[in-house]
Amino acid sequence: MYLLEVVASAPGKVILFGEHFVVYGEPAVVMAIDKRAYALAESRKDRRIYINSKNLGISGVFVGESFEAKKGGREARVQLEPIRKAAQKVLNLAERKIGVSIEVRSAIPIAVGLGSSAAVITATATAVSKLLSADLSKEDIFRIAYEAERIVHGTPSGIDPAISTYGGTLLFSQNKDFKPLEVKGDIPLVIGDTGIERSTGEQVAIVRERKKQYPSIFDPIVEAGGKISLQAVKALKTGNLQELGELMNINQALLYSVGVSNESLERFVYAARKAGALGAKLTGDGGGGCMIALSPSEKLEQVAEAIERAGGTAFIARKTSEGARVES
Amino acid sequence: MYLLEVVASAPGKVILFGEHFVVYGEPAVVMAIDKRAYALAESRKDRRIYINSKNLGISGVFVGESFEAKKGGREARVQLEPIRKAAQKVLNLAERKIGVSIEVRSAIPIAVGLGSSAAVITATATAVSKLLSADLSKEDIFRIAYEAERIVHGTPSGIDPAISTYGGTLLFSQNKDFKPLEVKGDIPLVIGDTGIERSTGEQVAIVRERKKQYPSIFDPIVEAGGKISLQAVKALKTGNLQELGELMNINQALLYSVGVSNESLERFVYAARKAGALGAKLTGDGGGGCMIALSPSEKLEQVAEAIERAGGTAFIARKTSEGARVES
Repeated sequence: MYLLEVVASAPGKVILFGEHFVVYGEPAVVMAIDKRAYALAESRKDRRIYINSKNLGISGVFVGESFEAKKGGREARVQLEPIRKAAQKVLNLAERKIGVSIEVRSAIPIAVGLGSSAAVITATATAVSKLLSADLSKEDIFRIAYEAERIVHGTPSGIDPAISTYGGTLLFSQNKDFKPLEVKGDIPLVIGDTGIERSTGEQVAIVRERKKQYPSIFDPIVEAGGKISLQAVKALKTGNLQELGELMNINQALLYSVGVSNESLERFVYAARKAGALGAKLTGDGGGGCMIALSPSEKLEQVAEAIERAGGTAFIARKTSEGARVES
Repeated sequence: MYLLEVVASAPGKVILFGEHFVVYGEPAVVMAIDKRAYALAESRKDRRIYINSKNLGISGVFVGESFEAKKGGREARVQLEPIRKAAQKVLNLAERKIGVSIEVRSAIPIAVGLGSSAAVITATATAVSKLLSADLSKEDIFRIAYEAERIVHGTPSGIDPAISTYGGTLLFSQNKDFKPLEVKGDIPLVIGDTGIERSTGEQVAIVRERKKQYPSIFDPIVEAGGKISLQAVKALKTGNLQELGELMNINQALLYSVGVSNESLERFVYAARKAGALGAKLTGDGGGGCMIALSPSEKLEQVAEAIERAGGTAFIARKTSEGARVES
């Protein structure tokens, strides 16, 4: 017996510690947040894959290798391709000669480093897997999402599909190893969005150039960046929010030193601290994108307001242990 | 033949690179600036030492170990004591059983880390030495100023009296060694004063605490701080202002990481960069005090204006090779 319709979801993420330094072999700490992407999958008799992204306002049908745009023109293909890839891989694994219609929507802000595209892909793979009773393992889902995301990111770190699949908090190392971390209590965050789009590639290049120009200065800075992540692992285990906040502030300064902070991020960071945050830093690529502020629960609202007064869009996010899942 | 009246002067300073890290054995780069303190010395037949500080609005007479306030009350003694000490030491060395009247004034802002007190002391020692034809060497003047400054600072680094005595640009190491650096071309700076007073001791304690709490993180950061100074030595030699600016920005980030930057400093730093500065950082203790912005000569005015718009008091300063000197 096959299901006619399945909804699955997967979480977005924030990098708590170690972005950029992870490129040079240092560990990074990544946490799933309670903002999720959803995929509704329905089987279809033809062998087509129809995809509709509510957030992007685009849709289209894949027939074999050809694409027929429904909304958003031919450029829609680029954005829908990874979702197609994920669905196709599951269909192939399940050896089912049918098609699927997929509708995705996401509560994760798009293109600001919060892992929205990986969450959409992971939710899709999960939904299609369930739809076809393919009974894929988490490892299968991760691998499919990782491969599908390669279309977007070239050589992705694997951070985003891993956290979307497994949820919780993960320690990453450069060789794509990751392991779950023990976290005591809540990790209440405010996420502030600068609204400034940046390219991952450009931000990574800034750091690479600085490092190449001044190796004697940046080698120890990168080392210090790694030590922050390791110290944070201990603080997460004991739920020491005070210390996590301090470590965020230090991490922010090091990201500043490698050239990926900017005035808006710094303004939000100071505004958040002044409003009672225990610590604040950019998260992800920097140069725009988002920052996070760790705040006592009772101060989340005022920290969010402070960031908005400073010109950002702010929302509250908490950790979630829930990775990709089928919605009841 | 003795002179009846001598005017001498000595320069203030900025720390270009390495403040705080110098406490942990790393090198610092310090530059004399074209803002000077002046001391007018006149001999007197009695053996009293009369001191009048125009800037502080205080004056008084030392008769042996007792002090008679003229202006500013008995608290004036604390501030006049180092100047007395410097004059007394020169009198002792010259073996002259007379007194002196000293009038000091300074174009260096007071108590913001620009070395105004050492400049006043050094100018005094130089003026009194000339007045008495004591023919003291620069080394003698430095030693006298260093000893006199100990009254103010406990265990001073020796940076301030050294730069006031010798002028130019000096590389300091922790063991009070210093050597002159070769500098090509001009080093045009804007100095921005936050107007926030801070205590050197408190700022040093902030860094010490952080370092004690997270040694694995801060040991490499301190190391990176030292490497910035060494890289700057090369850039000064070739007059590479672009690189010096970049190094200032990196240095600012590391000072931020050890906890001695603050919101005002950061606001000025970003304002200066946006107005065309090649780089900007706090100078001295941080937590308030002053910042410096390295700027192309043609942009000095607009950088100064940007800092003033951001809420600071700004002035332009350039390097000077002139240490303590007798004014003609």
